[in-house]
Amino acid sequence: MLPTKALRSVQPSAALKARVPRESYLRKLARPEDLVPLFKNHDYCGWSGCVGYPKETPAALAEHVEKNNLQGKMRFSLFVGASTGPEVEERWARNLMIERRFPHQVGKAISKGINAGEIDFADKHLSMFAQDLTYGYYSRDKKHGEPGKMLDWAWVEATEILPDGSIVPGASVGATPEILASAEKIIVEVNTGLPSMKGLHDIVISQDPPHRLPYLVTHPADRIGTVSIPVDPERVVAIVETNKPDNTGKNAPETEDSKKIAGHLINFFEEEVAAGRMPKNLLPLQSGIGNVANSIIGGLKESKFERMQVWTEVLQDTFLPLLKSGKLDFATATSIRFSPDIFKEFYRDWDDYVDKLLLRPQQVANSPEIIRRLGVIAMNTPLEVDIYAHANSTNALGSRMLNGIGGSADFLRNAKLSIMHTPSARPSKTDPTGISCIVPFATHVDQTEHDLDVIVTEQGLADLRGLSPRQRAPIIIEKCAHPEYREQLLEYYDRSLHECLKKGAAHEPHMLRNAFRMHLNLEEKGTMKLSGWS
Amino acid sequence: MLPTKALRSVQPSAALKARVPRESYLRKLARPEDLVPLFKNHDYCGWSGCVGYPKETPAALAEHVEKNNLQGKMRFSLFVGASTGPEVEERWARNLMIERRFPHQVGKAISKGINAGEIDFADKHLSMFAQDLTYGYYSRDKKHGEPGKMLDWAWVEATEILPDGSIVPGASVGATPEILASAEKIIVEVNTGLPSMKGLHDIVISQDPPHRLPYLVTHPADRIGTVSIPVDPERVVAIVETNKPDNTGKNAPETEDSKKIAGHLINFFEEEVAAGRMPKNLLPLQSGIGNVANSIIGGLKESKFERMQVWTEVLQDTFLPLLKSGKLDFATATSIRFSPDIFKEFYRDWDDYVDKLLLRPQQVANSPEIIRRLGVIAMNTPLEVDIYAHANSTNALGSRMLNGIGGSADFLRNAKLSIMHTPSARPSKTDPTGISCIVPFATHVDQTEHDLDVIVTEQGLADLRGLSPRQRAPIIIEKCAHPEYREQLLEYYDRSLHECLKKGAAHEPHMLRNAFRMHLNLEEKGTMKLSGWS
Repeated sequence: MLPTKALRSVQPSAALKARVPRESYLRKLARPEDLVPLFKNHDYCGWSGCVGYPKETPAALAEHVEKNNLQGKMRFSLFVGASTGPEVEERWARNLMIERRFPHQVGKAISKGINAGEIDFADKHLSMFAQDLTYGYYSRDKKHGEPGKMLDWAWVEATEILPDGSIVPGASVGATPEILASAEKIIVEVNTGLPSMKGLHDIVISQDPPHRLPYLVTHPADRIGTVSIPVDPERVVAIVETNKPDNTGKNAPETEDSKKIAGHLINFFEEEVAAGRMPKNLLPLQSGIGNVANSIIGGLKESKFERMQVWTEVLQDTFLPLLKSGKLDFATATSIRFSPDIFKEFYRDWDDYVDKLLLRPQQVANSPEIIRRLGVIAMNTPLEVDIYAHANSTNALGSRMLNGIGGSADFLRNAKLSIMHTPSARPSKTDPTGISCIVPFATHVDQTEHDLDVIVTEQGLADLRGLSPRQRAPIIIEKCAHPEYREQLLEYYDRSLHECLKKGAAHEPHMLRNAFRMHLNLEEKGTMKLSGWS
Repeated sequence: MLPTKALRSVQPSAALKARVPRESYLRKLARPEDLVPLFKNHDYCGWSGCVGYPKETPAALAEHVEKNNLQGKMRFSLFVGASTGPEVEERWARNLMIERRFPHQVGKAISKGINAGEIDFADKHLSMFAQDLTYGYYSRDKKHGEPGKMLDWAWVEATEILPDGSIVPGASVGATPEILASAEKIIVEVNTGLPSMKGLHDIVISQDPPHRLPYLVTHPADRIGTVSIPVDPERVVAIVETNKPDNTGKNAPETEDSKKIAGHLINFFEEEVAAGRMPKNLLPLQSGIGNVANSIIGGLKESKFERMQVWTEVLQDTFLPLLKSGKLDFATATSIRFSPDIFKEFYRDWDDYVDKLLLRPQQVANSPEIIRRLGVIAMNTPLEVDIYAHANSTNALGSRMLNGIGGSADFLRNAKLSIMHTPSARPSKTDPTGISCIVPFATHVDQTEHDLDVIVTEQGLADLRGLSPRQRAPIIIEKCAHPEYREQLLEYYDRSLHECLKKGAAHEPHMLRNAFRMHLNLEEKGTMKLSGWS
């Protein structure tokens, strides 16, 4: 049925044989360039990711497009749990090979394509992407004869294949289980350049309602699944060998501001413990990506907290020294995204770490059920927060997509403590503090006022728990706004309050005519600093 | 320690004795007016609700304030799971007795006080209110000597007391378990005018992290708790007898538009079943409050669907005929809010219904964990939805609070199908279609674009699953907007797209200067119909 017999036969290397103890798979070994004729314009492709993405097949297809000037004529719907490597996804974007992309992305070319109207992208809570895929929500208009075949293709990387045909992924699980379950045809890239990561994963196949079961996790270290992802062997079209590393790049370096933010937060945690609202070893930590996240985890290494736990989406570099320090008992996530040097250290000292780490499907790692049960402390960075604590995580000036919401709202909605951290101001082209990250009205709302407990900038920390909107605004402005914007923001609030009290509409006071005035001024004059309110 | 010995002794009625088989409680029987001296200005009070609220003690205190002109001198922080009866809460609001109110309210006087800046109110997801209370988030500035005493008072209604001192509530559980667990002193009003509702409730006491356990519910009928709410008998200060009914008022009547919306939705459900994305008996239904909700449930009675299930927050009138029809197998919620006549019918035919109904704490009924596991179909009404599917559930023109978010976001974030239904337009003072419910930019965002699957008005239904923002906007406008606004909204979208494409920022195209133009026009000219965009 499948045209694989046309492929030239390839002899497996000794390294590959050691990783693939299943003859029927080895017979499907192929050169990636030989697979190119299998792929049709408008195919639906699911990839493993964020790290552990397929490296050979996407590159072979991109090369085919480049050599034959097929840009814009070979376009695909691309579904990956999160981001992938720039050397494949960016190359696809530059070659106009992506017509549709869900639910997250990182890279200049792909975000350019999205914002130029060429790629239909939507971001989605990472906990929901995998289930929406199996529900058939992304393939409503696709003719698929049978259930469970929402995608034409799954291209996934494995570090080992087990005798039953199931696969052991690399340093990420993401949505790979659901992508494999939803694909008509499967290509497995076996990475012999990485160690086998068997034992690092806890794989759960989530049933669809009405047959879904509880996730019986009450501690970050709890195992509820298997060590490998099940695969229907008859759907496996080809096996490809690769030895390319994940192209992760460097982690964002700490700054003076990120260290100050981390300092405010650690001080706050100490106060929470003293007030009896938090156990002495805190609660499982979730930390986003970026320099502040790195500073917080680095800061915790120097703190007095011990026996800490991590329940998060992605593990960055600074988690490794925290594990090594002995202060972190256990960390679980859906993905490890170390920089290349730290990955080398991790592989070298594998035995020291593997019992303290567990990778889970993103549907589990980001599940509201477990995040709420464990009482996670969630910490993420927005683009901007408004004076009532609505946050924009995705769209600059309301319209220009950066990366997507990722799992931030999964965590911030359900955490026991929901924290957003941001510098108080960022530079515009002409003004080093031209962009205030505290604004009157967020130009895109991803996290609502009902979801955030704490806002922190290098200026200070605003604890908003139990406060009304009118109580929140002055505190956010005073504690968090950059000094150059404080007066301007307070004047917005005071005038709004005055006008709304006159109208009997002062629960959350606004002047709608002025709500985006600072953003418009930035577009027109390169700074959010106004000459005055009107 | 407690000044209850000063109370005049009261002889229990035979009816009360039958409901209170515990001598130590009967010894605390009191007249409500005798309790008044116990209450201090600024006390923190938790009440049971939404129905089954305390009726006697709040009235006695209000009478005391009225008789002694203490308006504004006896002010309380009032915590109730949701709304209560207008005869008590509205009276308190009129007498300036509420200085702080969480997390929901219904009534003209209380919303007037909130919008006049007199009452510090914040709405909160109903699933989170109870846990935030036990975490101590509402009592950060309150001196409380011991954990578990975040509130000064719990005033709760019971329909029976069990020998162990635990209480059987009325037709609502709400946040009563957590309010009782958090209060230093407890007053129980035993309602002998209602039947004992023993057996109607499934009470779970949710532990705080890190000791919280899974909710082992996989079907709406599953019981995981007890039939009564535990109470520390030593904290019970007084027992009061009442026989007053719940003052629920009439349910909202159906209209031609609400029937059309219900028709679109039932048609959509049939298509989903045909496409294999939904079981034949659907999935557990959640339905909000109001005339559309009544029309949907009424419409389902006439539909071909059978063996349906309900997992919702509040049961309205139309659920009773649906149960009687045999098409609804089981319904569970946190509260029953029938109109008085339907309540009478319910009590009369109690034995027919009690095995088909279960009331749960709102922390369970609204729990993301169970809503997502069961794959609930969620249906709620917003004030307005924007062209990219952000919805405003709470604040008119961004600032004037109506009732609060309630549990809408608990359900809409976690449901398998997240549906918002609204008339396409509402009347302003001068124009029968002066307010478009489809707008360019929601003036307050409670539900984000990442949370909504379907928008439906009397005009039609927009299925947004798997679509990018640029794909969503034309569909929402075409299918859902009132014909008098379609062209105007399309022009907003087209111009925004044109401008944002030029800037390379067209993921979710907006003209920020015009985003609230329709709302400003409404304030200035009484209609959202513009002479043109600028």
